[in-house]
Amino acid sequence: MSTEDDIDLVFKALANQVRRSICDELRKRPLTTGQLASCFPEIDRTTVIMHLRVLEKAGLVVPVRKGRERFNYLDAMPIQALHERWIGPHAERAASGLLQLKTELEGEAEVAVEEQ
Amino acid sequence: MSTEDDIDLVFKALANQVRRSICDELRKRPLTTGQLASCFPEIDRTTVIMHLRVLEKAGLVVPVRKGRERFNYLDAMPIQALHERWIGPHAERAASGLLQLKTELEGEAEVAVEEQ
Repeated sequence: MSTEDDIDLVFKALANQVRRSICDELRKRPLTTGQLASCFPEIDRTTVIMHLRVLEKAGLVVPVRKGRERFNYLDAMPIQALHERWIGPHAERAASGLLQLKTELEGEAEVAVEEQ
Repeated sequence: MSTEDDIDLVFKALANQVRRSICDELRKRPLTTGQLASCFPEIDRTTVIMHLRVLEKAGLVVPVRKGRERFNYLDAMPIQALHERWIGPHAERAASGLLQLKTELEGEAEVAVEEQ
């Protein structure tokens, strides 16, 4: 999960409300596909399986076979990677950028008040 | 930035390599649209502006007018919100889920070795 094409898959997978709801369910605990389908009674099972495949291809869901059952696990590592890209180690720099903006805007506001 | 429709916009905006590169540039420092366009000499200015509008609609880029210039700032709050949804306060639970899986798989591996 490193090339830009892989990252495209993550964002395309998550740009869908049902797939985000599937991630919400799997974050609570791993589920078999049947258990997951029963969380979405308004959606037919085939559609749930289709959404799961999209999430799997993006590396967001990992299927794990346990005995005769196959559990779907959420793998949040791709989301962690995005956080690190735009927030993580650079949070301080971003915060200081916003602080700088605030200071500048306050300076402009003072000038505006003085001009009144 | 709270409804699921708003979140759709964030993911659709970020499901494009050029728009992610724009976020990378703006994370370093705010830029005018002209400065930003010069970071992407291989893309025409109209296309850069089109990408900026998509990022703005998603709340990822905020334009700030300073005197005669208009600077584009990265606003990473929508990305922070995603992180909190799937990782943040639940990181411990997710980590313990993975640990549980690891323990179970190791248990199965031991059974497999004993059966040989």
